[in-house]
Amino acid sequence: MKGAWIVDQGAVDVTAAFRVTRRIHEERTPYQYLEVYESPLFGRMLVLDGAVQTTEGDEFVYHEMLAHPALCTHPTPRRVLIIGGGDGGLLEEVLKHPVERVTMVEIDEAVIRAGREYLPAICGRAFEDSRTALVIGDGIAYVRETTDQFDVVLIDSTDPEGPAIGLFAEEFYAQVARRLGPDGVVVAQSGSAVYQQELIRMVRRHLRPSFPVIRTFVATVMAYPGVLWSFTIGSLAPDPACVRDNEIARRVAGFELKYYTPSRHHAAFDLPPYLRGDVETE
Amino acid sequence: MKGAWIVDQGAVDVTAAFRVTRRIHEERTPYQYLEVYESPLFGRMLVLDGAVQTTEGDEFVYHEMLAHPALCTHPTPRRVLIIGGGDGGLLEEVLKHPVERVTMVEIDEAVIRAGREYLPAICGRAFEDSRTALVIGDGIAYVRETTDQFDVVLIDSTDPEGPAIGLFAEEFYAQVARRLGPDGVVVAQSGSAVYQQELIRMVRRHLRPSFPVIRTFVATVMAYPGVLWSFTIGSLAPDPACVRDNEIARRVAGFELKYYTPSRHHAAFDLPPYLRGDVETE
Repeated sequence: MKGAWIVDQGAVDVTAAFRVTRRIHEERTPYQYLEVYESPLFGRMLVLDGAVQTTEGDEFVYHEMLAHPALCTHPTPRRVLIIGGGDGGLLEEVLKHPVERVTMVEIDEAVIRAGREYLPAICGRAFEDSRTALVIGDGIAYVRETTDQFDVVLIDSTDPEGPAIGLFAEEFYAQVARRLGPDGVVVAQSGSAVYQQELIRMVRRHLRPSFPVIRTFVATVMAYPGVLWSFTIGSLAPDPACVRDNEIARRVAGFELKYYTPSRHHAAFDLPPYLRGDVETE
Repeated sequence: MKGAWIVDQGAVDVTAAFRVTRRIHEERTPYQYLEVYESPLFGRMLVLDGAVQTTEGDEFVYHEMLAHPALCTHPTPRRVLIIGGGDGGLLEEVLKHPVERVTMVEIDEAVIRAGREYLPAICGRAFEDSRTALVIGDGIAYVRETTDQFDVVLIDSTDPEGPAIGLFAEEFYAQVARRLGPDGVVVAQSGSAVYQQELIRMVRRHLRPSFPVIRTFVATVMAYPGVLWSFTIGSLAPDPACVRDNEIARRVAGFELKYYTPSRHHAAFDLPPYLRGDVETE
């Protein structure tokens, strides 16, 4: 299979392709077609229904930026809920904080199994941590039915197609808000900052009724279509743009991060004028 | 030609492709194969030897970032030299500053002709400005032979292949340094920040003997391979990382920029830890 390419369609009129040298694993799960490839550029890649989800080589950008800006926004994050994130990379980042409990609700057990077996560099020993509570099930139903309270909710979903659509709905965000404490923060990956601006605007519009503070930020994720990726935070009180540098530095001291720093926190929320106009209309 | 794609090879193991709907112009110039395409995503695109050079839709990122960080680093840029840049987009940005004279040395007159005819949205009226001095010729020979002095030199080259190779050489940078005044600044596009790190290191290594201050910065150029693009400044004295926000704000007031801002200046030089380690070894 030398010379094969994973072709990732980012938008109708643009595409990216990554050369892969070997397919390490494939299976049809109850929810999606799961493959693990070896690539010269990014090491092992997890591919779901043909879309690159994460790679050994660049996962740290996405997972650091989905975890730390939201966690550093909350004054004392102790109880954290992850929706999705079966590869365990986000879980590993969250566990670097002094949290009491991280509940992770993943609908597709096969993703967790494949991640632990074929991508151990991404999840590390996160699934063995005594603070990890793993739930195999539908994140939407879980949030609707649980009586637990959380400080921070992290939504690590696939694209808004198939089972993931409900994770971008106004009703879901409203249920999330009900499960959050008074300083509660939710963050969602919200797609390509340039090619999926309609998605960003939809996420912001759907967060609006439940969250008084809404902020979109960006990071460069090399293996994602368009590279410049967006994340959107909804907060019940603290403003992510106002967290102080020394507070962030104190929180992440010793984490040995490769992308997130106090100055990058602020740079990420400081969208260039052309993007600010495009996405902050909602 | 509906549904055709421009496939841009960024590195051996990754590629990007943009759908184009119409070829507006093509010619073999003495130096390269020149094409202009219409694309749904970026409007008109200039393609040289199969590589996307600039597009109507995203040229402002590349041209603002090649022009303003270097110009704002020099205390009083009055005499500016552009090497390459035949499309005129960089020239237009430079002319926003109160410069006395901008000399532009482009080796391929056909690029200027095609730019003015097919991409007027990119060059605007820059070529008609009375401060513009256009030289058709080899930038390396020009710098070696001229006796003029400059405050800032901007190198808007193609990839380091064919005639552009010499624009990345230590000897060329040494000649540039000789043509600069005491606060002189040179900036060069130095390739993909992730896929061409060997190029960035080479540029830094070749600037080192002539320039005491060397800084690499990044910007997200959507139509370039890997999106996250690098630029490297060599300075005889002023440090780009130490320019004050209010000084930048004063300089670019009224420019109506779409990407560059005082905070983005500093964010651009603040490379993430993983890139800093990769490129700042030289």
